[in-house]
Amino acid sequence: MPRPVLLFTSPFADRPLAELAAKAAEWGYAGLELATWGDHLEIQRAAADSDYCQEQLDLLARHELQAAVLAAFRVSSAVCDPIDERHEAILPDYVLGDGDPEGVRERAAEEMMAVARVAEKLGVGTVSGFLGSPAWTWVAGWPAPTQEMIDGAFEHVAKTWLPILDVFRDCGVRYAFEVHPGQIAFDLYSAERLLDAFDGREEFGLTFDPSHLLWQGVDPAEFLHHFAGRVYHVHIKDAVVSLNGRAGLLGGYWPSGDRRRGWQYRSPGHGGVDWEGVIRALNRTRYDGPLSVDWHDPDMDREFGAEDACKFVQRLDFEPRT
Amino acid sequence: MPRPVLLFTSPFADRPLAELAAKAAEWGYAGLELATWGDHLEIQRAAADSDYCQEQLDLLARHELQAAVLAAFRVSSAVCDPIDERHEAILPDYVLGDGDPEGVRERAAEEMMAVARVAEKLGVGTVSGFLGSPAWTWVAGWPAPTQEMIDGAFEHVAKTWLPILDVFRDCGVRYAFEVHPGQIAFDLYSAERLLDAFDGREEFGLTFDPSHLLWQGVDPAEFLHHFAGRVYHVHIKDAVVSLNGRAGLLGGYWPSGDRRRGWQYRSPGHGGVDWEGVIRALNRTRYDGPLSVDWHDPDMDREFGAEDACKFVQRLDFEPRT
Amino acid sequence: MPRPVLLFTSPFADRPLAELAAKAAEWGYAGLELATWGDHLEIQRAAADSDYCQEQLDLLARHELQAAVLAAFRVSSAVCDPIDERHEAILPDYVLGDGDPEGVRERAAEEMMAVARVAEKLGVGTVSGFLGSPAWTWVAGWPAPTQEMIDGAFEHVAKTWLPILDVFRDCGVRYAFEVHPGQIAFDLYSAERLLDAFDGREEFGLTFDPSHLLWQGVDPAEFLHHFAGRVYHVHIKDAVVSLNGRAGLLGGYWPSGDRRRGWQYRSPGHGGVDWEGVIRALNRTRYDGPLSVDWHDPDMDREFGAEDACKFVQRLDFEPRT
Amino acid sequence: MPRPVLLFTSPFADRPLAELAAKAAEWGYAGLELATWGDHLEIQRAAADSDYCQEQLDLLARHELQAAVLAAFRVSSAVCDPIDERHEAILPDYVLGDGDPEGVRERAAEEMMAVARVAEKLGVGTVSGFLGSPAWTWVAGWPAPTQEMIDGAFEHVAKTWLPILDVFRDCGVRYAFEVHPGQIAFDLYSAERLLDAFDGREEFGLTFDPSHLLWQGVDPAEFLHHFAGRVYHVHIKDAVVSLNGRAGLLGGYWPSGDRRRGWQYRSPGHGGVDWEGVIRALNRTRYDGPLSVDWHDPDMDREFGAEDACKFVQRLDFEPRT
Amino acid sequence: MPRPVLLFTSPFADRPLAELAAKAAEWGYAGLELATWGDHLEIQRAAADSDYCQEQLDLLARHELQAAVLAAFRVSSAVCDPIDERHEAILPDYVLGDGDPEGVRERAAEEMMAVARVAEKLGVGTVSGFLGSPAWTWVAGWPAPTQEMIDGAFEHVAKTWLPILDVFRDCGVRYAFEVHPGQIAFDLYSAERLLDAFDGREEFGLTFDPSHLLWQGVDPAEFLHHFAGRVYHVHIKDAVVSLNGRAGLLGGYWPSGDRRRGWQYRSPGHGGVDWEGVIRALNRTRYDGPLSVDWHDPDMDREFGAEDACKFVQRLDFEPRT
Amino acid sequence: MPRPVLLFTSPFADRPLAELAAKAAEWGYAGLELATWGDHLEIQRAAADSDYCQEQLDLLARHELQAAVLAAFRVSSAVCDPIDERHEAILPDYVLGDGDPEGVRERAAEEMMAVARVAEKLGVGTVSGFLGSPAWTWVAGWPAPTQEMIDGAFEHVAKTWLPILDVFRDCGVRYAFEVHPGQIAFDLYSAERLLDAFDGREEFGLTFDPSHLLWQGVDPAEFLHHFAGRVYHVHIKDAVVSLNGRAGLLGGYWPSGDRRRGWQYRSPGHGGVDWEGVIRALNRTRYDGPLSVDWHDPDMDREFGAEDACKFVQRLDFEPRT
Repeated sequence: MPRPVLLFTSPFADRPLAELAAKAAEWGYAGLELATWGDHLEIQRAAADSDYCQEQLDLLARHELQAAVLAAFRVSSAVCDPIDERHEAILPDYVLGDGDPEGVRERAAEEMMAVARVAEKLGVGTVSGFLGSPAWTWVAGWPAPTQEMIDGAFEHVAKTWLPILDVFRDCGVRYAFEVHPGQIAFDLYSAERLLDAFDGREEFGLTFDPSHLLWQGVDPAEFLHHFAGRVYHVHIKDAVVSLNGRAGLLGGYWPSGDRRRGWQYRSPGHGGVDWEGVIRALNRTRYDGPLSVDWHDPDMDREFGAEDACKFVQRLDFEPRT
Repeated sequence: MPRPVLLFTSPFADRPLAELAAKAAEWGYAGLELATWGDHLEIQRAAADSDYCQEQLDLLARHELQAAVLAAFRVSSAVCDPIDERHEAILPDYVLGDGDPEGVRERAAEEMMAVARVAEKLGVGTVSGFLGSPAWTWVAGWPAPTQEMIDGAFEHVAKTWLPILDVFRDCGVRYAFEVHPGQIAFDLYSAERLLDAFDGREEFGLTFDPSHLLWQGVDPAEFLHHFAGRVYHVHIKDAVVSLNGRAGLLGGYWPSGDRRRGWQYRSPGHGGVDWEGVIRALNRTRYDGPLSVDWHDPDMDREFGAEDACKFVQRLDFEPRT
Repeated sequence: MPRPVLLFTSPFADRPLAELAAKAAEWGYAGLELATWGDHLEIQRAAADSDYCQEQLDLLARHELQAAVLAAFRVSSAVCDPIDERHEAILPDYVLGDGDPEGVRERAAEEMMAVARVAEKLGVGTVSGFLGSPAWTWVAGWPAPTQEMIDGAFEHVAKTWLPILDVFRDCGVRYAFEVHPGQIAFDLYSAERLLDAFDGREEFGLTFDPSHLLWQGVDPAEFLHHFAGRVYHVHIKDAVVSLNGRAGLLGGYWPSGDRRRGWQYRSPGHGGVDWEGVIRALNRTRYDGPLSVDWHDPDMDREFGAEDACKFVQRLDFEPRT
Repeated sequence: MPRPVLLFTSPFADRPLAELAAKAAEWGYAGLELATWGDHLEIQRAAADSDYCQEQLDLLARHELQAAVLAAFRVSSAVCDPIDERHEAILPDYVLGDGDPEGVRERAAEEMMAVARVAEKLGVGTVSGFLGSPAWTWVAGWPAPTQEMIDGAFEHVAKTWLPILDVFRDCGVRYAFEVHPGQIAFDLYSAERLLDAFDGREEFGLTFDPSHLLWQGVDPAEFLHHFAGRVYHVHIKDAVVSLNGRAGLLGGYWPSGDRRRGWQYRSPGHGGVDWEGVIRALNRTRYDGPLSVDWHDPDMDREFGAEDACKFVQRLDFEPRT
Repeated sequence: MPRPVLLFTSPFADRPLAELAAKAAEWGYAGLELATWGDHLEIQRAAADSDYCQEQLDLLARHELQAAVLAAFRVSSAVCDPIDERHEAILPDYVLGDGDPEGVRERAAEEMMAVARVAEKLGVGTVSGFLGSPAWTWVAGWPAPTQEMIDGAFEHVAKTWLPILDVFRDCGVRYAFEVHPGQIAFDLYSAERLLDAFDGREEFGLTFDPSHLLWQGVDPAEFLHHFAGRVYHVHIKDAVVSLNGRAGLLGGYWPSGDRRRGWQYRSPGHGGVDWEGVIRALNRTRYDGPLSVDWHDPDMDREFGAEDACKFVQRLDFEPRT
Repeated sequence: MPRPVLLFTSPFADRPLAELAAKAAEWGYAGLELATWGDHLEIQRAAADSDYCQEQLDLLARHELQAAVLAAFRVSSAVCDPIDERHEAILPDYVLGDGDPEGVRERAAEEMMAVARVAEKLGVGTVSGFLGSPAWTWVAGWPAPTQEMIDGAFEHVAKTWLPILDVFRDCGVRYAFEVHPGQIAFDLYSAERLLDAFDGREEFGLTFDPSHLLWQGVDPAEFLHHFAGRVYHVHIKDAVVSLNGRAGLLGGYWPSGDRRRGWQYRSPGHGGVDWEGVIRALNRTRYDGPLSVDWHDPDMDREFGAEDACKFVQRLDFEPRT
């Protein structure tokens, strides 16, 4: 049985959910990974108001869409990040408060507990998100951190998140952390270290997104086999390496699409990800969750792309040998 | 006429200069790039005590070694970096003080002015070093910074360093910033942006080190041609990309030599740098400064390697067409 | 005019032919390459019973399927192989007998003559199969065989098969030997040597299957041009090389799909074969026989795959320049 | 301290040892890996005659050569191989006897015990050799063997060799099996399976030879790290992959140097082995045994090559970080 | 809004336009790039006879086809080429005359002015064509020309064409020169030199055809970005590099399809052009002209191919970000 | 026995032979390939004056240099080339005359006969040179020539050169034509066609220079095997492909060393030629003539390079298996 193909609503967060849901259904999607920002899902309102929850579910149901996953990337990142202007631009006011970093981080942690409870209320089993990182500034830089500093950073992340994960466990909701540059874990070995730090907590797993592995040189299929059983969510996002002797792999300070970057995001199937290898590894490792299109392409119209991507994923998802 | 081959003394900072100088001469080096830490060159002492300066010069002269370049990587980095445990481990006490970041940065700036004056005193025309970076944490991470944040970071670096560069100019000494991950400029296009920020100040140029460009996918020869005339110093350092499907290019949290890293430093000529292309580009762009071995190899004995590297560079440096 | 696309029934030998034929027609196939095992075609019964032959033909005709090729891989291999447990598992009892190698080989030879006669009876012009090999154990191993031993092996194969080929000739049926590891000929040059050994017998030609050439590093298009006019049958089968520094090309002792192998079979169009090159070479060399899907993919549902493959081959087979 | 560079005497087995030893010393070798055939070391004579042993040692000592390793490839292979003309050409008469396979195998096993005892007598700590294989004919061929057949083959090899290894253990001599096509283990995963079959016997380890891994696509450095501590001997032998669309990787039936092969042996440093990676892996895994040149190059004069190889290995073997 | 997909009529110049137009419409094309030879468009007749012009337009209109571009490759090439047998075979008699080179070139120049006037009459805004080259014989040959000879050749081309371009300007028609081997400009840097020679004349731009860049090693996307705003027309033509160690990239003297050539033309999407990169660069550089299929494939039926190509281009041309 | 390493004197044609000979001997060369221009060897003087011949030989003998080959590239090229300014710059006045192409070609042919006679007089067995080409302008250009035009060009070259070759034959001197872009034969298949045109004349063979094959994608070792026995002379010249997405392989109009070219000449061993493959192929095909350094490198001092090249070739030329 094919996996449900979801549309992650983030790239359309500027559109009312009612409008987007109609489009998504028309494009062929089976459900949504709902951004917990914009009007797609307001956490505090959902926490306080059960009618609102039901209304959002009804809205989706009218288009025969599931609310399969909640996405909490914005707030989750603030839990362990150093707070700067980037967070100011994306956090809700009641989390940002006076902007004092320590307070922001605490309120972000509380908000994540609220997300878990809202997910339970909506009957959603998985929340995708980040963790933040006190250590990103040390990656690839100089001077190198000591092993103690690294260990300290992982311990800090674990200690800070464990109370939040307790709430997830109690709500029966799984948290699927996306392995992503800027986060405490961004490649295969750092994700391995992270899972050690969380010591096998069942409610904690990974969101797999091959676009972030591609330019780092990590084989996405190898990643899936390595973390078989711990991949709780999958983002379908593509990228291309576009080195030409001048651009650099780190992407520099240049915005998406700028030719000075050594890699770019691409609409699924238009980039360099070996999707054949990805789907085989998902089949082998018996991943049976949704495939969620996290659409980004600096060159393509987003509506054209979202529809194109849905068809691409439906073709991709072949029936495995039983 | 071949360029002088220098040994950068940093990897031997634990050895007394007297001992190292004897070795370096024996290995075939023509001079040293002196670390301004350990006992190789104490800046405050040199600033205060002209006899000390002469003694250090005499020591080198006894081995027929030039003091061609001063290296100020440790202190310079603190001028614009967020200060953390990594700096605490490498800064002298009188710069670190009570550790309050703002104060550390100010004292680091003053120390850099002292370095310029010491260089003048010693008759050294070039200082190599870093700038620090308020923006490294944003590179490749999430959320992406706005263009304003990036511009702000470059302006901050320029504003902070211009008074220091004034001293360099007045002393007749050039500052050669090393393009390096972790710094405000780490690849070709970020270095281009940096030079714009400094608006063509003559005393400001670049230290070229191909090992940092290799794994980022930037072509070292293209870099040299792009910045012809602005490369004020050259580090001879090699590296190898060692991806195997699991390791990642960012190097992760793993120490030099750890097989979980996707690239490694290598003794010159034992890695993946196209040295033939580098030397031709140096010849074409009429670089006539020294070639300074910045030796690092997690697998090789450092004395064996330093000698091997000197011979490698001497063979490499062929006579250009006149 | 497009070539007929056949389904080789071997991967479905556990299904009654009646059921498979209905499916194959539904998937879009024009005919079958019939396995001479399972209930797809029982040789002794067909030899003895003309009604049985007609029934099988009628069954296919009801689904508008041709019986274009008979496949005799199992018995043919026993004609010149050293006999071991592998053959015991696949030979019919009346060929296996008491298992004494000499006797098995003789009965296998007789059975192959029967296959030729059955093909004639059914109006089938081509039989695909193997030859066996007394020399496989020497390939790539140690100590290397002498040239005399090699020549002796080819002479032995020729001498043993010539009486069988006489029967093929007399029946007006062509024998298409599949170039395949384990057989006396497995790559381009060994196939060239084999054709020399048979000295141009018209009824003897080759079955081309690019999946076996791919991982050996032989270019399939070059193979087709080299043997233009001698390729009597084509298997459409794909594979992928999946080396990662640990797996080996020989495939080791590991079953299909095991990640310890350095290559894997793939459903057509999902692997590494340059099908564009293959179809152009088939067009250039004026091959006008069928394209027979020999389906194998350790990761894919076989029904899904068989249908997908039929569509793939239909799209592939473009109209050549006239 | 650099490792001793040995010359494996096999390619010079037609020359009297006295003559070869003089040459080897002149070329710069520190010792020999003695072939136990030709006049280099006659096992039965050495077993019976202690004076002979001393004479051979004296002969080497006159040239300041160590007798560091005994090589027993010819006889060892017969212990578990199916016996054919290839063995007839290389076994001594008293092992071959009447040529009945079962008897040959038994006498080969006894001879291997004698080799262990001779090694002890000579003070040689390591014997290099093969195991033979009842399963080679199944590799990459058709039909594939069952898992039971594979397991049976490994059990057979282990059962046959354990009594021989008991003698090695009792003599204090290690047996270093060369991972090699044609043998029961020929790549990384089959070697892993083999070590399981021997269940960690201390006296049993591996001879590493990268030339056999190269064309199979196995990364030699990965192999060394995988079997760290179990590599008891190292052969320095190079090879090159020379695919051109027609030649095949299996090497076919063609002798060394024939252009129809897809790979060729090469004098060390003249081929495709990443020796930089090999020596670093040997250093990392703290291999401190000899580096033994197993010279073979179909295009080069063997005396020129043996001298060239000695110099190559001496340069290669850099001093590791302590 | 997708760009119009045109069929360049040259490969069908042997077919009456009436017949071809019907086919083209059926295959899905939106218009034609009309060859100004065969009966597709007779320049002198069109110049003299306005009814003829209207008839041709009506013919196309009946099939809802635009006459979007006129192609003048044959005559234009003769304006600056040395004249030889190749031109004799393709020029109309009234241009060829007595064949004296100087006269031929003059009459070709006059004919090009006529083409401009006919384009205006037909309401066609773009003419595609060549320039000819007095310098091609010097490219890659020996002895090398001096810089003066090269400059002289560009000046000659500019001086000869400027009066023709004056007519184009006066008619309000743009001339789109195809960068093509054999012409004065054939790669990125020669096209840059050419644009300098024409000193920014607005009516002069380029026809982009990636098939000619591919085998020369020039990146088509880089070409498009480099000449953003100066690409006035686009040919959709594919090619494949088919080196095998013996064939050469220059293509030698061998006709299209001959296996002795190192590259071949291919039907669009069946070759090696990175069409994903091409369409993104066209979108980025805001090219909004037609995409004209210049069909050539030595292996494929041309009608099959022309239809296949139309569908390929329609799928390719995705909607850019607005 | 190693082959003699020669220096082709062309890059030093501005230096008096006496001076160059002294240098060449000092650098380690065994002999010279004498340019028949500058003062290195004046053909008309040598033809008329036997004392001059002896003086030149004596001059070389004083430095223990052989006069092994005469090089006649300048005049030979004019025999079948269209004559233009390039030839005017390099032909002697008495060949150029009034510059009328037909007359120049005739006088060039006569001069080549004189070269053959001078070679005989000097005891030199081989003359290297070109043929010229009436067909180069057609290569890779448009429109393509017909097969008749190609055949006509080869016939013309053969008919023009056969009388010259008669003189070579009568003098007992071999003519070694260099396969080179710009000439009638420039890659493997055009050289094959050329040999057909000369129909096996014994005195006609090839000069092999891998630098011209490299960028065309022809494998030098394959070339040597293909023309085994017909390679009469070898130039040691290296090159590198330096594509970067903008430069093109044809080299454009740009002088040696210009970064707009897609390939560059390199001093031997500093470029991309697989010299290991070249020397093995020379050994295999039993070429026993000289190895002549045709030095060219736009980045390197020519004296430094000539010495470096001599040492490189001496190391390269290993002793083949006997």
